Amino acid sequence: MSLNQRKAEYIQHIEAFLQNWYERFKTEPQKLLFDAMQYSLLAGGKRLRPIFAFEFCRMCGESWEKATPFAAAVEMIHTYSLIHDDLPCMDNDDYRRGRLTNHKVYGEAMAVLAGDALLTDAFAVASTAELKDVRQLSLAISVLSECAGSLGMVGGQVLDILSEERQCTEEEVLAIQSRKTGALINAACTLGVIAAGGSEEQLAAAARFAAFTGLAFQIRDDILDKIGTKEEMGKSVGTDDTKNTFVRIYGLEKCEEMVCDYTERAIRELSGFSNTAFMTELIKSLASRRN
Amino acid sequence: MSLNQRKAEYIQHIEAFLQNWYERFKTEPQKLLFDAMQYSLLAGGKRLRPIFAFEFCRMCGESWEKATPFAAAVEMIHTYSLIHDDLPCMDNDDYRRGRLTNHKVYGEAMAVLAGDALLTDAFAVASTAELKDVRQLSLAISVLSECAGSLGMVGGQVLDILSEERQCTEEEVLAIQSRKTGALINAACTLGVIAAGGSEEQLAAAARFAAFTGLAFQIRDDILDKIGTKEEMGKSVGTDDTKNTFVRIYGLEKCEEMVCDYTERAIRELSGFSNTAFMTELIKSLASRRN
Repeated sequence: MSLNQRKAEYIQHIEAFLQNWYERFKTEPQKLLFDAMQYSLLAGGKRLRPIFAFEFCRMCGESWEKATPFAAAVEMIHTYSLIHDDLPCMDNDDYRRGRLTNHKVYGEAMAVLAGDALLTDAFAVASTAELKDVRQLSLAISVLSECAGSLGMVGGQVLDILSEERQCTEEEVLAIQSRKTGALINAACTLGVIAAGGSEEQLAAAARFAAFTGLAFQIRDDILDKIGTKEEMGKSVGTDDTKNTFVRIYGLEKCEEMVCDYTERAIRELSGFSNTAFMTELIKSLASRRN
Repeated sequence: MSLNQRKAEYIQHIEAFLQNWYERFKTEPQKLLFDAMQYSLLAGGKRLRPIFAFEFCRMCGESWEKATPFAAAVEMIHTYSLIHDDLPCMDNDDYRRGRLTNHKVYGEAMAVLAGDALLTDAFAVASTAELKDVRQLSLAISVLSECAGSLGMVGGQVLDILSEERQCTEEEVLAIQSRKTGALINAACTLGVIAAGGSEEQLAAAARFAAFTGLAFQIRDDILDKIGTKEEMGKSVGTDDTKNTFVRIYGLEKCEEMVCDYTERAIRELSGFSNTAFMTELIKSLASRRN
């Protein structure tokens, strides 16, 4: 199966699952809430985090569908974070993926609540994972929560806001990005391993893979904000010039090198898994992506 | 042990636990986030939900401390909901429990993120509960998530916002309140039973108890908004006159009756538990409370 075929299969599977999950609630009186949630949840996107969860599950020798509840939960959390990030009191963005942002369509109050609900519901979805052991489920819930919460993604968002007024050091930018984007990619990869009942070593390797891949992904993002077009990116570009991006600190050329370097280090972490060709090809394609 | 002694013991225990949980993170660079979270988390309040969780665990014959992770998780979720409810795009409140609201002290962006983090972290705390069986933990996480999410508390908040423009029927007010306040009280009570490894019958009785108690509590709240003073309530009163409150629909006298009636029905649901004297006394005291 080619890279694009497998990607398409994963994306179709996760989108059908997410659509289904909410479809059954549409008879509830708070239908508008489900509409607002689905507006952002089914707005496309790369579905990178679900793909990582599925692939790590498969690379551990399990059938990839077993990771579905975790893949969906991580994508719901990713989606909520985008809705809240776009709010007027945060980044105040009007467009996301070429469409109006959630609060532009549903209003601020509903956007806050749609985000809150996606975040909360993610744990109900995750709790449906079929695991054998109470320790596995406990680990899965704490991984998801810690990667997304005050120690992870939300913590990174706070550091990012606090750093806006001043020029950061390299260590500070790494601290921000490892939490802001890295943590949820970490959750996706390690939850894939947990779904498959993988070993301690595989868990640790998945976390290191996620750290390197997260950095490569974020640096590529910063590069594209500099060299990409609005059409390619589906959002305004060149807006990061005053932000503490990797490009601002290291310059474009060094950043291109860093993307290659982190991608190679990520690939080396796959040595303890089987069937790694797809994942290797995937993260190489991410390193040279145009959107 | 008297009602007030036991209440004080529970409150001291949960506040020490919550304080401790975050204290260890204070060396993280996102210290301001933890400050904002603790500002609201340790702002007092009745701690009713933790007390319910502890008591249901004890009434099932277990030591009440076993419910601590669930009690803390429910209180964290309750706290996040207050922070987000107070936001300018929601109720736009400046004061809560006699102190400035979170966004008035930390700004809107930080208040959104402090709420997000409390909600997320609640699941990490809940996942530390010591349960024997994977089905028990799976049930606990899904109860917590469903009571708090789109089918529960957030759903109720949406219905409340949607009903602002018009006069609701009795059924609609019940639908709003059972989700908005009832759902999280339901989570507290049933999680107490789950922590103790209680029976299916006890789980169902705890849910019914929570429904009746939630209604009695909310109706009493509506009454106090009408007859209480700002000093007693620690917040503005008489602000609900244009809202779909029980008092507006039924009038004061009928509401007093309903509080008594629902309280008695709640008490009858305790027949399948032991040591119910404290809980009986507690909800009777709530039915006649002045704040």
